[in-house]
Amino acid sequence: MLKILKFLVVTLLLISYNEGVFGQDEDALFIKKIHDEALSNGMTYPWLKELCTNYGGRIAGSKSYLGATTFAKDALNKIDKVEGLLQDCEASYWQRGAKEKAWIVDSKGKNIPLKVLSLGNSIATPANGLTAEVIEVRSLNEVEALGKEKIKGKIVFYNRAMDPTQLRTFSAYGGAVDQRVFGPAKAAEYGAVAALVRSMTTSSDDFPHTGVTTYRDSTYRVPGIAISTNDANLLSKKLKSGTVKVYLKTECRTIGIRPAPTVIGEIKGSEFPDEILLIGGHLDSWDVGQGAHDDGSGCVQAMEVLRLFSSLGYKPKRTIRAVLFSNEENGLAGGRTYAKISDEKKEFHLAALESDSGGFSPRGFSFDADTSVFKTYYKNVSQWLPLLESYGLIFEKGGSGADINPLKSQKGLLIGLRPDSQRYFDFHHTANDRIENVNQRELELGAASMASLIYLIDKYGIQ
Amino acid sequence: MLKILKFLVVTLLLISYNEGVFGQDEDALFIKKIHDEALSNGMTYPWLKELCTNYGGRIAGSKSYLGATTFAKDALNKIDKVEGLLQDCEASYWQRGAKEKAWIVDSKGKNIPLKVLSLGNSIATPANGLTAEVIEVRSLNEVEALGKEKIKGKIVFYNRAMDPTQLRTFSAYGGAVDQRVFGPAKAAEYGAVAALVRSMTTSSDDFPHTGVTTYRDSTYRVPGIAISTNDANLLSKKLKSGTVKVYLKTECRTIGIRPAPTVIGEIKGSEFPDEILLIGGHLDSWDVGQGAHDDGSGCVQAMEVLRLFSSLGYKPKRTIRAVLFSNEENGLAGGRTYAKISDEKKEFHLAALESDSGGFSPRGFSFDADTSVFKTYYKNVSQWLPLLESYGLIFEKGGSGADINPLKSQKGLLIGLRPDSQRYFDFHHTANDRIENVNQRELELGAASMASLIYLIDKYGIQ
Repeated sequence: MLKILKFLVVTLLLISYNEGVFGQDEDALFIKKIHDEALSNGMTYPWLKELCTNYGGRIAGSKSYLGATTFAKDALNKIDKVEGLLQDCEASYWQRGAKEKAWIVDSKGKNIPLKVLSLGNSIATPANGLTAEVIEVRSLNEVEALGKEKIKGKIVFYNRAMDPTQLRTFSAYGGAVDQRVFGPAKAAEYGAVAALVRSMTTSSDDFPHTGVTTYRDSTYRVPGIAISTNDANLLSKKLKSGTVKVYLKTECRTIGIRPAPTVIGEIKGSEFPDEILLIGGHLDSWDVGQGAHDDGSGCVQAMEVLRLFSSLGYKPKRTIRAVLFSNEENGLAGGRTYAKISDEKKEFHLAALESDSGGFSPRGFSFDADTSVFKTYYKNVSQWLPLLESYGLIFEKGGSGADINPLKSQKGLLIGLRPDSQRYFDFHHTANDRIENVNQRELELGAASMASLIYLIDKYGIQ
Repeated sequence: MLKILKFLVVTLLLISYNEGVFGQDEDALFIKKIHDEALSNGMTYPWLKELCTNYGGRIAGSKSYLGATTFAKDALNKIDKVEGLLQDCEASYWQRGAKEKAWIVDSKGKNIPLKVLSLGNSIATPANGLTAEVIEVRSLNEVEALGKEKIKGKIVFYNRAMDPTQLRTFSAYGGAVDQRVFGPAKAAEYGAVAALVRSMTTSSDDFPHTGVTTYRDSTYRVPGIAISTNDANLLSKKLKSGTVKVYLKTECRTIGIRPAPTVIGEIKGSEFPDEILLIGGHLDSWDVGQGAHDDGSGCVQAMEVLRLFSSLGYKPKRTIRAVLFSNEENGLAGGRTYAKISDEKKEFHLAALESDSGGFSPRGFSFDADTSVFKTYYKNVSQWLPLLESYGLIFEKGGSGADINPLKSQKGLLIGLRPDSQRYFDFHHTANDRIENVNQRELELGAASMASLIYLIDKYGIQ
């Protein structure tokens, strides 16, 4: 029985493939052209190199960020038929300040230095630093269970590791990052003086990983500081044999609201100019490293989609718009502002595709939309899978991107590029997120994948 | 019509999937356990680190190679139920000698240094080096077409680049590597004094890539030397504006036949001990770099398959044998000797799986076998695809590995692990092939993929 079924399946698959759905041959050829152009004359890598080298550490509102917006706008304007511009946006600007210090206080005077980085948005320690006993926990719940009596006056050390058995590192990140985002506020609520958070990576290394922490409306706030995984392991080991005190000194602070424009480049559609197909990433990064994978890669890939269409002479029916969002890392002001203006203009984004998972080998796309339209859209795009699976791509349901998520109410299709995730948390939010850790071909293939999918949506629509 | 067909296809696929072929649930669970163990307690990375750090640059026959064989045998013996041993093998030992020199001779005395590496197996230049005019060609055929008159006394510069538009870099390598393997001999045949070969990579960088060149039986031999892609581009540019002379000095030589054992570790099968399932890589590397991706990765992955089975308490029905072959890079003595001994013992390798494409994210397996058995084997393994595709793996027809290819006459199934290939030629045969360029999770996932497939073959057979 099984053999017969399998025979039927294979036969039917062959029939359906050979029927030439959607001008398959012509589309396959154009998708090949997109890839050939990206791999032969691609601009993603030279652009990313310039962005990283000249405008690394681009916190929205910083001088480096403003330089990056000019660079990106100019690069977009150099592409034939593309108009580049800046969209006003304001963002809360946070600054790290002087080099941060931390050590395990040794009773014999031999302090052990710890590799740390203040979390983004964190307040600083007192000017002379602070010294306190450390209490290790695995979760926010554990802080609640321990209660004020045990937490008061201490440094809460969140040390639940990312789960290495998750095949996708983003799932492991999702299962641990609450410690970083909400841990310092929770520690403050129970009277702690600071929070140390194990860095978000499955690697054992010496790179602390920063990233946003939030205090919401709480008035009593304490410093939130990331500690490298190697030092987290060391600290945990020391705590097993008794009381451990740690000294912390940081000078970070929120400076205030600053201009931090979003960069936009566009090719107007010839038939349906009011149907926008957005490709994007976020131009801001944290201040350490160069924001190469997070998310310089997504920005240059979005720019490259426009360049590929332009240089291949493809005249889109719909409006193709590259958007390099501001302030993804520390408040999402870029995405929110963009959506607000778009809604005010009564724009319609038929599709929005974000690349914000690093410049690694593309493995597929995940799709999301308002439930009233999702089924139809997903069924329609799924018909193109045979054209893309020979490039190693799969389609799946799932999230898209933080910057484009506010567009969901426009009831278009939201898409996330899904690159191979294994290396992402070697670099994410660290001094190690640099151009030399991006492979040119992997970056180029991501851009070609994005352009291929956008080409199909442009040509056939999804409604 | 198409919609009906698609509906039928999906329905039938679901039926066939849900029929519970091959105890699917139990197998899915064990494959998950394999992955969990590899990602949580994997030994690939610590083993590779030790191998690279202490026994980098392991040309078969070198002291470093012999150290590596002892290390690997000891590590295998430490795995419960595994017996590690050395299989005698002899290999022709070639040595690079002192630092190699090359420059473009400038008439005004300002020579321009070139980054070069002698090709493996190459002869040296005369003791004082040689200086000659360079003639650029794109192929071996072009040397023939130019003829002796134009080639005589010159340095033939093979400068056909690897095709960047090939999605798989190994295809691009296959389309260019004849210049390295046969180019120097062809140049000699037409009276050249040396051959310079553009490095085998699509990257533009400063790392020359070595690799084997062969003279076959020719008596007039000339030095074969790799030049970095950046310098190849420079040299080509200079040649466009006139005659260019290059100076070359190398001291490499073939020392002679030396002991270079192959390392073997085995778990005896409980039901069919005479059916061998081999997993392997090659332990030798070139002398530059540490042989991290090529092919320390394959070796530690093969060792890890045994460790995974042992630590998960899996008792194989068939004999599982890890083989770390000698001398893959410069003559394949390890693979040939192993197959000869195996044939003499009338062994039968039901399957042999080699990992020799780098320690990158696994993307699938390619299968090969004698035509008399291939269809049956491929049909049978294909039934397990649903168990592995959720790990991002595909099955395809294609080559397996150089070391296991001599086993083809035993009429078992030959399998190659196919990792993502985009980064491989950033490192292959260069000083850059080092442990820091291997990602731990990608390496571990490759080992888990291999163990998963071998588990299924062991449990169900393929005949």
